[in-house]
Amino acid sequence: MSLTREPLVVIVSGPSGSGKSTLVKKILELPNTMLSVSYTTRQPRPTESEGKWYNFVNQSEFQRMIDSGEFLEHAQVFGRNWYGTPRRWLREAREQQKDLVLEIDVQGAKQVRSQIPGSIAIFILPPSVGKLADRLRGRGQDSEDEIAPRLEGAQQELECFKDYEYAVVNDDLERAGRDVQAIVLAERCRVTREPERITQILMSHGG
Amino acid sequence: MSLTREPLVVIVSGPSGSGKSTLVKKILELPNTMLSVSYTTRQPRPTESEGKWYNFVNQSEFQRMIDSGEFLEHAQVFGRNWYGTPRRWLREAREQQKDLVLEIDVQGAKQVRSQIPGSIAIFILPPSVGKLADRLRGRGQDSEDEIAPRLEGAQQELECFKDYEYAVVNDDLERAGRDVQAIVLAERCRVTREPERITQILMSHGG
Repeated sequence: MSLTREPLVVIVSGPSGSGKSTLVKKILELPNTMLSVSYTTRQPRPTESEGKWYNFVNQSEFQRMIDSGEFLEHAQVFGRNWYGTPRRWLREAREQQKDLVLEIDVQGAKQVRSQIPGSIAIFILPPSVGKLADRLRGRGQDSEDEIAPRLEGAQQELECFKDYEYAVVNDDLERAGRDVQAIVLAERCRVTREPERITQILMSHGG
Repeated sequence: MSLTREPLVVIVSGPSGSGKSTLVKKILELPNTMLSVSYTTRQPRPTESEGKWYNFVNQSEFQRMIDSGEFLEHAQVFGRNWYGTPRRWLREAREQQKDLVLEIDVQGAKQVRSQIPGSIAIFILPPSVGKLADRLRGRGQDSEDEIAPRLEGAQQELECFKDYEYAVVNDDLERAGRDVQAIVLAERCRVTREPERITQILMSHGG
């Protein structure tokens, strides 16, 4: 006996330098999870390979995808590059009976939450605002020109934590990783998610 | 800088034979947790020592505690023995800055939840109703006279799972233990629990 269940949609947001990508990887270590790979018009970083964390497309291809309604959400970040979450991952997650993890910014998170009411949202916080700036500079992947608007954006993003169900402070990677995994495991135990499965257990007299 | 926080109150219920005491122990393995030791008028089992899982008192002492308002909740279970949760654990948890774990029945859970709105409740389910009967008999601590009303009570209790936030199926002790721990860790990350602490992080420019 098996029942199909709606995928749990887990949104992870946080300012650049908060370490959210590392924590998303921690969630993906859990069985039955999959990543929603976003589309973006920004240039790939040297370490990034196509289709793993992003699908890199040009402006006109991105526009075509908007026009044909392929995005669950899309947004222009810092008035520059476009980012979008394709709808198809949700269908795939449903087919594969997996939970879907979205790493998206605060604008995108709002759009997704309005469309998927059962989704949960985790905000990743740096240990302090000072540490955030250090981390952005220390990463060395980006020029100061790129860092300045990110720091400004980070300050604005941080104000949005109250719209999220959960906040995880990334001061210790091991503890923070355990916390984000715990959030997903706990949400899977919510009675509201699987009342039918539970009723089935109560009806079963076999071992 | 440290802020006092209200203890997280974690209620664990489930029918006899669901293995809830074992899962409560799993929660208590987490740092900063403590058990609310209940009072009861029932006889101690041979393996039970005073004050560890229960304080054993006689009927008149229990009545005195009711009369002087010492209980957060109290109830007579299966029309026989009395069980009560003293208020003082909540004060101690607040003083020690720990989260408080209550192993109580569905009646008691209702009373506690109405008095402590921020409390969370976990329902422990057996893998099947058949397994529950096997477990109750297999335990060998109790006579058939004691088992029969428990099985009846269990059936009634099971119907109450919908009033709980979380349900954990105890079909695999390791997985179920990880799930109950995850629920507590996740609830500690709820934004609504510690908005002040988060705001403090956002204000801090130091490392």
